Amino acid sequence: MKKSIHKKNKKVSISVPAIRRLPQYLSFFKSVNNGENSFVTALEIATALHVDPTQITKDLSGINVKGKTKVGYEIKELINVIESFLGYQIKRKAFVIGAGNLGTALMKFNEFHLEGMEIIKGFDIITEKTGKEINNIKIFSIDTIEEHFDKTPVDIGIITVPANETQKIANILIKNNIKVIWNFSTMPISAPTDIIVENTCIDSSLAMIKWKLNKNMPLIYKNRII
Amino acid sequence: MKKSIHKKNKKVSISVPAIRRLPQYLSFFKSVNNGENSFVTALEIATALHVDPTQITKDLSGINVKGKTKVGYEIKELINVIESFLGYQIKRKAFVIGAGNLGTALMKFNEFHLEGMEIIKGFDIITEKTGKEINNIKIFSIDTIEEHFDKTPVDIGIITVPANETQKIANILIKNNIKVIWNFSTMPISAPTDIIVENTCIDSSLAMIKWKLNKNMPLIYKNRII
Repeated sequence: MKKSIHKKNKKVSISVPAIRRLPQYLSFFKSVNNGENSFVTALEIATALHVDPTQITKDLSGINVKGKTKVGYEIKELINVIESFLGYQIKRKAFVIGAGNLGTALMKFNEFHLEGMEIIKGFDIITEKTGKEINNIKIFSIDTIEEHFDKTPVDIGIITVPANETQKIANILIKNNIKVIWNFSTMPISAPTDIIVENTCIDSSLAMIKWKLNKNMPLIYKNRII
Repeated sequence: MKKSIHKKNKKVSISVPAIRRLPQYLSFFKSVNNGENSFVTALEIATALHVDPTQITKDLSGINVKGKTKVGYEIKELINVIESFLGYQIKRKAFVIGAGNLGTALMKFNEFHLEGMEIIKGFDIITEKTGKEINNIKIFSIDTIEEHFDKTPVDIGIITVPANETQKIANILIKNNIKVIWNFSTMPISAPTDIIVENTCIDSSLAMIKWKLNKNMPLIYKNRII
């Protein structure tokens, strides 16, 4: 009955920007999900998410989902396919290095569990923080991280330390065979090509905002317009 | 003496990705700054930041900075020009809506002050949070936000509420003539074109990470490979 929705064994072909959009689609589908038989059209999705309907059909066909004529996409199925595609059922363990404001917030994000990432330990350079717990995640001294890697294989290292500490922490993670470095610092890191590096730089967003806000103002440095 | 570094009154021409890279350059320049007369070459910057040297020279000439033959760029000047370009000296007021984990972390980021953004008030729907202070920022009920806009003109509205509340909060901000909506939710928002919308979606980064980690694994939904 649902065969028409999936093309059997079709090779997945999806762009990087489309993968980054999938969590947004998922949020929307969950917000409109009314049960087993609710459907949504590409136009409805596009209108709600403020994008072009052709992008919706392209992105969803990229994860091997096709709508049915007239009724559109079955919402429950869309949710299941996206969650499967993003590997929500495949749990990955993570360490957070840097138990400051952002590190603390990330350790408190219970949504990460649903998304297949479990932060199991935190690390910090500041001794007052070690031994404490944040959302049941214990904080250890960064100096002891190697023995923790020995105890539990961990795939993801989340770096939330200041810029000048970033590469040093990255090197420790690399030495301990980390698969992914998720870098929240402003400082880019150097890593071998087989390591997945994902940068989430909040300051880059603020730079964009400030630039757009100020771009009609004269920016002057030493009496010269820049 | 420093005339050779800047082309006088040259029209600024810089790409959006380059603007997003400027905070990374700034982090690096600050980490290697040794005082008035320290210089850095494009090659040194490129090596440290793991990018192509031609990108460095292009990005920096985009903000009207040119290196000197042999010695390169004066670090102190680079820092000053980038900070001026990003308008760090032009202070912008912000409200945070959603005093949860991420909202709390953002209210605790003292770096925002240096970058020309001052979070002056927080808002939440949960009454237990209102009246409290986070890093000297008082939390008010979202129901009272209009009177706070009347008291203080605010340029930036930072949304850190759950996905299903995002558009409702955006609508309130739009009604109160906000200039920028900085959206940390997974749900994209609809706004008039004269409003600057910046999305920082942490889940998009996680989606990318999980996809790269799992892409060599068969992803199966209802006995079908997706």
